[in-house]
Amino acid sequence: MSSSSVTLIPVHGIGEVQVGTALPELIHTALRDNGLTLQDGDVLVVTQKIVSKAEGQTVNLAEVQPSPFAYEIAAQGRKHASYYEVVLRESRRIVRMQRGVLITETHHGFICANAGVDDSNVPGLDVVTLLPRNPDLSAATLQQGLHALSGATAAVVISDSFGRPWREGQVNVAIGVAGLDPLVDYTGQTDPHGYRLEASMLAVGDELASAAELVMNKIDRVPVALVRGYRYRATDDPQQATARRLLRDPQYDMFR
Amino acid sequence: MSSSSVTLIPVHGIGEVQVGTALPELIHTALRDNGLTLQDGDVLVVTQKIVSKAEGQTVNLAEVQPSPFAYEIAAQGRKHASYYEVVLRESRRIVRMQRGVLITETHHGFICANAGVDDSNVPGLDVVTLLPRNPDLSAATLQQGLHALSGATAAVVISDSFGRPWREGQVNVAIGVAGLDPLVDYTGQTDPHGYRLEASMLAVGDELASAAELVMNKIDRVPVALVRGYRYRATDDPQQATARRLLRDPQYDMFR
Repeated sequence: MSSSSVTLIPVHGIGEVQVGTALPELIHTALRDNGLTLQDGDVLVVTQKIVSKAEGQTVNLAEVQPSPFAYEIAAQGRKHASYYEVVLRESRRIVRMQRGVLITETHHGFICANAGVDDSNVPGLDVVTLLPRNPDLSAATLQQGLHALSGATAAVVISDSFGRPWREGQVNVAIGVAGLDPLVDYTGQTDPHGYRLEASMLAVGDELASAAELVMNKIDRVPVALVRGYRYRATDDPQQATARRLLRDPQYDMFR
Repeated sequence: MSSSSVTLIPVHGIGEVQVGTALPELIHTALRDNGLTLQDGDVLVVTQKIVSKAEGQTVNLAEVQPSPFAYEIAAQGRKHASYYEVVLRESRRIVRMQRGVLITETHHGFICANAGVDDSNVPGLDVVTLLPRNPDLSAATLQQGLHALSGATAAVVISDSFGRPWREGQVNVAIGVAGLDPLVDYTGQTDPHGYRLEASMLAVGDELASAAELVMNKIDRVPVALVRGYRYRATDDPQQATARRLLRDPQYDMFR
């Protein structure tokens, strides 16, 4: 399969999202207002933030009663105890903690800073967003809604920006997917020299999320991007079209 | 700055690269054969593999005398002692080792599997490539060569695919850059709600590398991609236009 060009298109004009906002309708309208028509084979990358807001995955910190341990963390860190309490509630395991920075494993199995609890881009200084409860389901629901509105079958990637060990800066990664396998396995295939690729898997779901970030621009209000021209193997198999494919088996993880 | 579309364009027809191959000429010709003209503001992403080959950063394992420790690792792993010996020589520190998998810190400061020593896509089963000795310099040299040939000032990113803790699959990252700052710092800027972004840095160099991978396709022979339309702040400041910006200060790294 010889590759051709891929276009990353920002979807402008998506306004404030509130609990109950119908994202398929909102995105469908915004695409049209941007002069775009959804096509089979498109990939829509949507930031976690608007999905969480639409799903009501927000918490008002003023209503949170911190536990003693949350106060303990707050004494070492820069945020309020209520914030850390929410982080603890979203976590099933603390991987590292240092100077009030928590790297935790969420209930979904993602390992990231502060369990993905985010206090930026939310109206009201005391409101934080949580990750969607089931990001794969969020992606599938969005995919189906857009299909119903447009007739087109596009894959959907829900993205969030995660930090990484060793490297500075965050990158966008996939936390939910629908319609494609986010992991492409070349193992056993032969390279141009006939050498078998031994263990070569590419996290294309994460690469799609990172690519989309290039047109999202954190300071602008561009929470949706369209990736057009990327050739992927479409699948709805729940064992393949899931961000769980991107979670390393703890048995093979040297950095637990 | 409102963002507009970004296009990822594979550069086909780049043949086998050998030691001494002039990469600027090779890429300049390939761009022309693809109907492309380099423009100011383009970003050229080039895989480490062809850079290393052109620079003669290859080793014939048959000529390597393994140390006793390399034999020790080979007894636990799946590769030859000579391979591990090369990995050790390219490393300044072993971060983890388990069942013959080595995560090491290279002399440049990159932390990755097997110090980036790669035995795929190289003619001759016993030949491996090392990372370029100075990937920023490789990028700058390529940038200057392309400028001389085309008159255009494009940024250059040298990429390699790295694994990550916790997440399955590799992603393309930047190991050398010229002409742009691979780290964009939003700290202190305000989001649409007037909330100050506290610590928000994006590793756009890595995101550019990941985006480019979407049109490179590991099995094809597409080691070069053109990213057109991405708006970046051009800089030649050696403190900013360097992949060292993407290396986390050990003091703040919880996964050493």
